[in-house]
Amino acid sequence: MKINIVKIGGNLINDRNNLHTSLKYFCQLKGNKVLIHGGGKKADFFSSKLGIPQKLIQGRRVTNKETLEIVIMTYAGIINKDIVAILQSYHCNAFGLCGADGNCIKSYLRDKKNIDYGYVGDINRKSVNTHLIKFLLENNIVPVFCSITHDGNGNLLNTNADTIASHIAISLAMEKNCKTELHFCFEKKGVLQNMQDSESFFQEINFSLFQKMKKNHTIKNGMVPKLENAFFALKNGVSKVSIGLPDYLNDVNNKNKTILCP
Amino acid sequence: MKINIVKIGGNLINDRNNLHTSLKYFCQLKGNKVLIHGGGKKADFFSSKLGIPQKLIQGRRVTNKETLEIVIMTYAGIINKDIVAILQSYHCNAFGLCGADGNCIKSYLRDKKNIDYGYVGDINRKSVNTHLIKFLLENNIVPVFCSITHDGNGNLLNTNADTIASHIAISLAMEKNCKTELHFCFEKKGVLQNMQDSESFFQEINFSLFQKMKKNHTIKNGMVPKLENAFFALKNGVSKVSIGLPDYLNDVNNKNKTILCP
Repeated sequence: MKINIVKIGGNLINDRNNLHTSLKYFCQLKGNKVLIHGGGKKADFFSSKLGIPQKLIQGRRVTNKETLEIVIMTYAGIINKDIVAILQSYHCNAFGLCGADGNCIKSYLRDKKNIDYGYVGDINRKSVNTHLIKFLLENNIVPVFCSITHDGNGNLLNTNADTIASHIAISLAMEKNCKTELHFCFEKKGVLQNMQDSESFFQEINFSLFQKMKKNHTIKNGMVPKLENAFFALKNGVSKVSIGLPDYLNDVNNKNKTILCP
Repeated sequence: MKINIVKIGGNLINDRNNLHTSLKYFCQLKGNKVLIHGGGKKADFFSSKLGIPQKLIQGRRVTNKETLEIVIMTYAGIINKDIVAILQSYHCNAFGLCGADGNCIKSYLRDKKNIDYGYVGDINRKSVNTHLIKFLLENNIVPVFCSITHDGNGNLLNTNADTIASHIAISLAMEKNCKTELHFCFEKKGVLQNMQDSESFFQEINFSLFQKMKKNHTIKNGMVPKLENAFFALKNGVSKVSIGLPDYLNDVNNKNKTILCP
């Protein structure tokens, strides 16, 4: 069983036209597939309108009780269901899921010893219910995950969507006769060498080049954890990891992407 | 295949302790079961906080574009996922659904000729994907429906939860070898004869008594459409319809409920 795991995020979610286009490309991808989506800016929009102050530590959001409610409402509510409804209109039999549904992703509250990130759920190799995902795929259902997980004790938690995508790809790759490819799709053609030039994307990046670029800050901000997730997947059984515009999904010859190499 | 269809609404949703207790009773119900939940007061709370004016026509909410977003976020987002996480913690393998997921409930925009209720979806006998619901039940998954449906063209719509419960019960009852019972659970012991006396519930109501009471206004407000949904189900193949506290769900001898008779 070959499975494509596609993550869409950033401005592909925020802009309605981009979202429709991305989902059209996703629909054209043949065979077994899983979609994971990020949250975009909707949670920030509602938090700001509701007057809930947003706290960041080292660039990462702190999820307090009120913020947790907002992210559940936006990620599992409006964004997830909107995506499922659009996919259904394209005759893709999508099924929206958060980690609690069918107990598909169980997380544990992030350790608060050093920094308290609040209601954030971390996941590990045992978190993903591969049995359920395979069961859905075998029945021609396309699982669409938002980045909300649960701890098994009745609590929902906020988990990074890239991390969920990597762990789903890794966990399915460990299953008998399963091969997975992971695709991180966003609004750029790949990992850029020069942030000012949208055409300056790498065709390939290997792990040692990534380490170098991380050191000299050629790669920074959100791209660092994204690539860490990507290389982590590649080192743990995922056959191929690519980053780029969703346009490449329906065309293996499309070179507008960065391919990660070991 | 015998299937219990349970609707919970009103203050069972608004109060956290009531919600936990209701879900415990639901878990104790043996065999195949489906849960449908209402929206409670959360959507009103967020609409008011966000300054979205609520318009009612003849006591029914008008769903404009902004209200639709709020009801999707609250019903399909926080309430549905919260319920699923709690059920999972009680080892009930719940799976949250809106009508778009697996195309399980397709609706059509309500006719605007007389009154424009906005983004409200009406459903009919063809709306419910019984194949999917039976498939989930046969695989020991408990479907948990919120009252958001879709039109198949990428649009989500707001649908009355009691109506969804009735139509699910009716559609499943029409399937070969299927028998359904419908339970409307709320914060009272049944349909009250005297609204000031919580013990004054009817043990039974038949259709002609309902018609009489509707005429002389013994039964009014929200109870009228609820009973109309209930009698509609009873007339269309549902074996039994009861209304009461969720406490009666795990005990067939519990008399704290109103049973509807043809």
